[in-house]
Amino acid sequence: MIIVKAGGSAITDKTQDFTPRLPVMEGVAAQLSRITATEQIILVHGGGSYGHPLAKEFELNKGFHDKSQLEGISQTRYSMTELNQLFLSCLIRNRVPAVAVQPSACFVCTSKRISLSFLEPIKNILELQCLPVLYGDVVSDSKMGVCILSGDQIVSYLAHALSVEKVIFGLEVDGLYTKDPQYEDAELVKDITFSDLNSITGGETGDVTKGMKGKLSEISKMEGIEVNLINLTKEGTLLKAVQGNVEGTWIR
Amino acid sequence: MIIVKAGGSAITDKTQDFTPRLPVMEGVAAQLSRITATEQIILVHGGGSYGHPLAKEFELNKGFHDKSQLEGISQTRYSMTELNQLFLSCLIRNRVPAVAVQPSACFVCTSKRISLSFLEPIKNILELQCLPVLYGDVVSDSKMGVCILSGDQIVSYLAHALSVEKVIFGLEVDGLYTKDPQYEDAELVKDITFSDLNSITGGETGDVTKGMKGKLSEISKMEGIEVNLINLTKEGTLLKAVQGNVEGTWIR
Repeated sequence: MIIVKAGGSAITDKTQDFTPRLPVMEGVAAQLSRITATEQIILVHGGGSYGHPLAKEFELNKGFHDKSQLEGISQTRYSMTELNQLFLSCLIRNRVPAVAVQPSACFVCTSKRISLSFLEPIKNILELQCLPVLYGDVVSDSKMGVCILSGDQIVSYLAHALSVEKVIFGLEVDGLYTKDPQYEDAELVKDITFSDLNSITGGETGDVTKGMKGKLSEISKMEGIEVNLINLTKEGTLLKAVQGNVEGTWIR
Repeated sequence: MIIVKAGGSAITDKTQDFTPRLPVMEGVAAQLSRITATEQIILVHGGGSYGHPLAKEFELNKGFHDKSQLEGISQTRYSMTELNQLFLSCLIRNRVPAVAVQPSACFVCTSKRISLSFLEPIKNILELQCLPVLYGDVVSDSKMGVCILSGDQIVSYLAHALSVEKVIFGLEVDGLYTKDPQYEDAELVKDITFSDLNSITGGETGDVTKGMKGKLSEISKMEGIEVNLINLTKEGTLLKAVQGNVEGTWIR
């Protein structure tokens, strides 16, 4: 079983609020329609410009502290479902039997980490040979009231809870770089071990972007599972990675 | 706490596939925005013409028997979420802090009855003073693979699991009639006890429509809770029922 994470910055335009990148979703869907013939897949996607602006405006990641945030909880959930429906419509059009599973209905966090889950529906969907689709969401937090549960944390949780062999992170850049890829001398890391990864995530040298740091911190929890980082905005990279031809970063 | 069930035949046009009745949803949302100031509400809605045509086409209520049904599971879930999002957009516009909870992510059935549930997110949403919104859905069934979980069954399950004082069923007719209301001599039943109700649901006399029979069978499981049946397509009926002025059928 493979978990594919479609990053929020790949499937949406993060520079413009509520702007999907439909060609990227369509491309993922087309590739998955071929992949699902031989592989069992779980798809998890991020929120990008459908989640972050609202979560930030209503300070949802600081927990529940004020009634004015209720509107924000409501709107963020609605907005994430809108993005999820766009992705699902691409998948259904490509004849992928995709089924959404709302994370806020089956996960509860304690201090921003998943502490309770209800995985029976996901297991059942996989048994039926359907493809479960999850996403970053505003979820209940037993300490903070609510919190943001990132798609990346869902991936690392499911990778441990289910029999997952490989996790593919689809980004809007080619993979992990030696420093922020906006610098000219940044170099793509093609192959790295989990122990070397820990030295990158442990440092505060600003070598990688803030978003990548959070991702690497989740990835470091997946030791023992093969992890690929690929550029989802480039054609065919997902299909190639599934076939073992990773045009990006290979972590093992 | 009050559970409001918005019937699929009230919020959609059942004679035309995928046709919402937006003015009815808007009316419910406007009434709920006043009601939620003093009452804690759970909203559950049916599928109407967003659920039944697909569920029937793909024989989803007969359980999983054929790979051709996968497309049906996928499409029905997508379609129910579409209807749910329409309702949510009305609620959000009316400043109701509504939060969808996907039933297929938190309920599992065995032979069409709920056998497992994960209610923590619903309880948390209520604690935050948000309004959880659930709906009829295609859910996992440990015996049949999948089944249709009706909004009515969700209502009777939650009525027992949580501290619910009243359940209001919003219909497209005024309430329970002595026979199918399309007959001229059908009379509205204004007040009925649970024991008299059992004599109606127990009979096979064709006194009520098939849809109403299923509903009454769920209602008969709610003895001890006040149940109202009202016409949701008429203005103000929901607000009146909450205030104790039931223009329809009162079951107690």
